Amino acid sequence: MELKLYFLGSSCSAPTKERNLTSIALQFKGNVFLFDCAEGTQQQMMRADISYMKIDSIFFSHFHADHFLGLPGLLATMNMYERDSLLRIFGPRRVEEKVKLALKIAGLKPLFDIECIELKEGIVLKEKGFYIKAFKLEHNTECFGFTFKEEDKLGKFMREKAIALGVPVGPLFSKLQQGKAVHIGKRIIKPEQVLDYDKGRRGRKISIVLDTRPSEKYIKHIKHSDVLVHEAVFASDLMERAIETFHSTAKEAAEIAKKAECKKLYLTHFSTRYKNLGKLLSEAREVFQNTYIAKDLLVESLPLNPEERIVGR
Amino acid sequence: MELKLYFLGSSCSAPTKERNLTSIALQFKGNVFLFDCAEGTQQQMMRADISYMKIDSIFFSHFHADHFLGLPGLLATMNMYERDSLLRIFGPRRVEEKVKLALKIAGLKPLFDIECIELKEGIVLKEKGFYIKAFKLEHNTECFGFTFKEEDKLGKFMREKAIALGVPVGPLFSKLQQGKAVHIGKRIIKPEQVLDYDKGRRGRKISIVLDTRPSEKYIKHIKHSDVLVHEAVFASDLMERAIETFHSTAKEAAEIAKKAECKKLYLTHFSTRYKNLGKLLSEAREVFQNTYIAKDLLVESLPLNPEERIVGR
Repeated sequence: MELKLYFLGSSCSAPTKERNLTSIALQFKGNVFLFDCAEGTQQQMMRADISYMKIDSIFFSHFHADHFLGLPGLLATMNMYERDSLLRIFGPRRVEEKVKLALKIAGLKPLFDIECIELKEGIVLKEKGFYIKAFKLEHNTECFGFTFKEEDKLGKFMREKAIALGVPVGPLFSKLQQGKAVHIGKRIIKPEQVLDYDKGRRGRKISIVLDTRPSEKYIKHIKHSDVLVHEAVFASDLMERAIETFHSTAKEAAEIAKKAECKKLYLTHFSTRYKNLGKLLSEAREVFQNTYIAKDLLVESLPLNPEERIVGR
Repeated sequence: MELKLYFLGSSCSAPTKERNLTSIALQFKGNVFLFDCAEGTQQQMMRADISYMKIDSIFFSHFHADHFLGLPGLLATMNMYERDSLLRIFGPRRVEEKVKLALKIAGLKPLFDIECIELKEGIVLKEKGFYIKAFKLEHNTECFGFTFKEEDKLGKFMREKAIALGVPVGPLFSKLQQGKAVHIGKRIIKPEQVLDYDKGRRGRKISIVLDTRPSEKYIKHIKHSDVLVHEAVFASDLMERAIETFHSTAKEAAEIAKKAECKKLYLTHFSTRYKNLGKLLSEAREVFQNTYIAKDLLVESLPLNPEERIVGR
């Protein structure tokens, strides 16, 4: 199942010639989830060949201008192209007020429904095969990070064996795959009878952390992410400025990735002062080797995790 | 004196991969004037190497979303880079309310002064060497077109002759150049004594017409423009749609350029349905040969007009 991460922008506070302001799209099984919506996001989505019409939900980390000003134009374009499905917009306190303001400035009465959902820590969206969780960050305003987690496959489903045991093809298959026992008449079929636990597959996990001072508090939420996207506004020599503005240095982002035992780290949300990001990359790689620099329109395709024993882990 | 026109975008209603929404910048003697400010304008200015910090005034034709949504982000960026000079914002009725809304959505208390000026037909800005005039268009909301007009030089100033006649070097020179007589003691020096009227130079004229149905009413204002920028949302086969939406076809824009005896026409503000604009161009060129298609980041440098006799014209 295809899981892709689209970097639509990577600049902080203002765009540059090469870098749009930061937004990130995640595509899973044809659904698109947008994380923040900076000015220019709709055009960046067009350029990245990801459908803004298929956006299922938008998640706002916070409402600072450089994360939010693309919403009015995006909603206007969705309306022009006659979107008719529900759009869910998640954000911190006053999300509904912010969305109303976006509609007002665009002079818009949308033809589609918008549901505004105020974020609280925990799972905020759960659908077949995945969930999205929000957790608090440490910025100078209420701000959330997000984790997308695909469902674990506990074992490889032995279909022929299930049929031989009399399980009818259908919903009971998926119940067994989820590790639950099922009743066939008076008999109980246990998952261990039809699952090869040596061949499970951990669900993929992506975490997105914008904007924050690094903190122990959110490490548990992003633990073992396959990809961690973390803001890195500054290089280490501007640590004081990072503290003042509640941002992170590239090295601090790498320390977070290391402590959280992530597989891969993308740095993003760079200060416009850096024409060359080599310094940020090398400072981060000293701490966490598998670090990369987000670039506008870069697409990261996450392969399925390898088969492994998950139960009892 | 350098006069340049920057096409920052050329799409109508929504951007496309290749075309940002329509905004136009005009640079004259180091000052920048911005006409409309669509989403993405600040980044397009960066890409076009024109300073958004040097914007003297912004002129809004009207406040539809596709002409206005770049304002909050532009103001935020000006503020971040510590602009300290006055910014003038001209627009139709309720311009001040619209600017306040832009500041609110950006969460901004600007460090620089903003003056909002409600447009009326006539000269709205006059400075040394040029003026900018507004005139009403025919859209489905109050909407203005604009003309930039450089001052005419009535004749070539014969500096040595003026000095020989006893005119002191200084402000009286420029009075004579403007065709006004001056007093030196009891003597009157007339402009014809120091101006070579065979070598005048017409000031350059640029007109910008977005969004409108074509109309006789505004032709007098754009008469003899060196460059006319005119919206051309549709090709001729969508004439009905143009009438419904108060827009122009490419052919109609060309008819306007012809009637107004303009030198050069740029079509812009194209419907997103056109991947290829060849049809619009050929329909327009049948009527007005010197027609061009605006392209994002295209820069038009206007040379000085040739020397000619202007007085008595």
